[in-house]
Amino acid sequence: MRKDIIKTLREKTPLVHSITNYVTVNDCANILLACGASPIMAEDIREAADITSICNATVINIGTLNERTIASMIAAGKKANELGHPVVFDPVGAGASKLRTETTFRLLREVKFDVIRGNISEIKTVYAGAGTTQGVDADAADVVTEDNLDEVVAFSRCLAEKTGAVIAITGAIDIVTDAQQTYIIRNGVPAMAGITGTGCMLTGVIAAFCAAASDEMTEAVAQAVAAMGICGELGFKKAQEAGGGTASLRMYLIDAMSNLDDEQLWNNMEMKGYE
Amino acid sequence: MRKDIIKTLREKTPLVHSITNYVTVNDCANILLACGASPIMAEDIREAADITSICNATVINIGTLNERTIASMIAAGKKANELGHPVVFDPVGAGASKLRTETTFRLLREVKFDVIRGNISEIKTVYAGAGTTQGVDADAADVVTEDNLDEVVAFSRCLAEKTGAVIAITGAIDIVTDAQQTYIIRNGVPAMAGITGTGCMLTGVIAAFCAAASDEMTEAVAQAVAAMGICGELGFKKAQEAGGGTASLRMYLIDAMSNLDDEQLWNNMEMKGYE
Amino acid sequence: MRKDIIKTLREKTPLVHSITNYVTVNDCANILLACGASPIMAEDIREAADITSICNATVINIGTLNERTIASMIAAGKKANELGHPVVFDPVGAGASKLRTETTFRLLREVKFDVIRGNISEIKTVYAGAGTTQGVDADAADVVTEDNLDEVVAFSRCLAEKTGAVIAITGAIDIVTDAQQTYIIRNGVPAMAGITGTGCMLTGVIAAFCAAASDEMTEAVAQAVAAMGICGELGFKKAQEAGGGTASLRMYLIDAMSNLDDEQLWNNMEMKGYE
Repeated sequence: MRKDIIKTLREKTPLVHSITNYVTVNDCANILLACGASPIMAEDIREAADITSICNATVINIGTLNERTIASMIAAGKKANELGHPVVFDPVGAGASKLRTETTFRLLREVKFDVIRGNISEIKTVYAGAGTTQGVDADAADVVTEDNLDEVVAFSRCLAEKTGAVIAITGAIDIVTDAQQTYIIRNGVPAMAGITGTGCMLTGVIAAFCAAASDEMTEAVAQAVAAMGICGELGFKKAQEAGGGTASLRMYLIDAMSNLDDEQLWNNMEMKGYE
Repeated sequence: MRKDIIKTLREKTPLVHSITNYVTVNDCANILLACGASPIMAEDIREAADITSICNATVINIGTLNERTIASMIAAGKKANELGHPVVFDPVGAGASKLRTETTFRLLREVKFDVIRGNISEIKTVYAGAGTTQGVDADAADVVTEDNLDEVVAFSRCLAEKTGAVIAITGAIDIVTDAQQTYIIRNGVPAMAGITGTGCMLTGVIAAFCAAASDEMTEAVAQAVAAMGICGELGFKKAQEAGGGTASLRMYLIDAMSNLDDEQLWNNMEMKGYE
Repeated sequence: MRKDIIKTLREKTPLVHSITNYVTVNDCANILLACGASPIMAEDIREAADITSICNATVINIGTLNERTIASMIAAGKKANELGHPVVFDPVGAGASKLRTETTFRLLREVKFDVIRGNISEIKTVYAGAGTTQGVDADAADVVTEDNLDEVVAFSRCLAEKTGAVIAITGAIDIVTDAQQTYIIRNGVPAMAGITGTGCMLTGVIAAFCAAASDEMTEAVAQAVAAMGICGELGFKKAQEAGGGTASLRMYLIDAMSNLDDEQLWNNMEMKGYE
């Protein structure tokens, strides 16, 4: 595994285009800057593909969809595919409404994603849309635990194979797989669920790491997932020491990302290959 | 009065749908999480009612209106009425433009609100739209003071009767009434006016408290108003001690909400019934 | 130069209408409050001009454009021109896409701006749109340095003359000019580039300062630029002392603005007239 992704990222400062939701967009922009990338957001159809052209990676996040932005997501995704730069999909709330589910399916048909990151429920909806109707029964699992880990890994590998994307299922235990290589990551703290946007921010960080190491995308995704978890741990520790709560955690988490280097990442990483 | 609303809220973690403005939406999501609820925002007409269906309460906030979102507000409000879950209205800037005033009137006609929260000017615009043209002269009052308190209470009771909603007028002194029961709350600090979104955040917290105690809605609203004021006091104290300013206040206020329990609420509440 | 702009601003609390991007809109609202102004955001064409009518200054920021908001920007800008209150333009990303460049040109044709603030690349795009095709070769400069300062000053004066606007080019060295008077400001720290929205926030602060001192607009712009730089310096110092990172810097910067007074501004200002 490459041990210089953050260093490379801070040198390259890749420009990351995000078509994302307005709930967490500010945090996404700030964490992209914190990890060494540069953010740009453009959602009008008349510029979505143009902006993608000057970028090094693209994020598509369906957290607050509307008709205008769906068209822009497809245009940006197609342009990114054409240019061969990493496209990361965050199917926020897939399964929660017909619009989100259908948009997820449509995006999967029209854009070739390099990475798909979500929680287990969202990824199960993606799975349904990937046309995979047999072999793995994921319905049993709504939370990833040590008990159902094998089952969820099998399911995520199957989805990785079907879509050609690196699949990242994040939660208490994180799984990253490209069907061949699989990593299990156990960084992070439960308190991260108390702030909005940790998932959206991670998706941005994944895109940044992939832009810095596009030749080793699976490792880049796994390291990004670990990096976010470590920043959550560091942020939580600092918030606790200061007697703070969730808003302090949010600040200290982004602070930690802005100070993170490869050495700190490797010293704190709780990652294992899965055989 | 129930003394376990926060406990119940943290156990139930109700899902709150907010169609709101993009200025303060992130703070609204974070304070919903901080008080024990779970936020979701969906503004497209094709999913607004669907998302409402999976939620336990709905917030309609007109802070940054546009044609698309007005239709979604009505669809979400109607669906919430149908399902019988609490709908809270925040008429941000009602009276400041024809669009906001007319939208306020339209929402009042098409949606049955359980709670309406605003400052005195906004509530006066709501009053005009509720078709109440006599009996109370509220024009005199643009700020609630000890001197005009009786008059404003009479006005708010009249509006509560007319609309069937619990009315919450917030400012230096807060009034919560359902026409029968009326509470006067004197928590909070003037510095809260130095950050954007304290009103919008409070509206979210009200919806969360109502979802946790829908059988005692008036008390739930009064306690939510007191809770927000107490968090402002605690946050202000911490910001002062740290030598900080308004951005620190914002962080410490949300921190305080994430740490608040019923005991702390009841120990710090400055609330009186109004006879 | 007036030495009471902040005092006046905190007394007048001008209402500033911003049609801006949703990435940094919350920070813009909070820093407007922090410096003594009051924010309102309205982007629907049916209220944009109405809201402008009740305001004291208008900000147009093209950070996340779409068809709806472009029309609203023009309506708000025209109304502000009619009322004679300051209109400040922030051409975010002008040059990065055809849509942004063309919208920049269109806004320059349809609205008379009092101030235009951007980085050197954005201002060069504005320059192209101002129909100035000779005399100054700005292509050489993509960063303002001590070496090319004379050249950039000449270019900015020329643009000020052409547009009738005060031009503010911000970066490591800041230039403010109305063609006659020119100020060079050397406040600020490089770490400010690590948070999103410092430019957008500054544009808001400029509008607030102009509303407080509309008779001495060039000085108001120069002081606003210095104020933002000083708050960056103070915020950076505090973040460093606390062992924090970029998110701490963001908080402490806004904190510093909320505590800033004219004396502190004048004691820390690194501003020189340029002959």
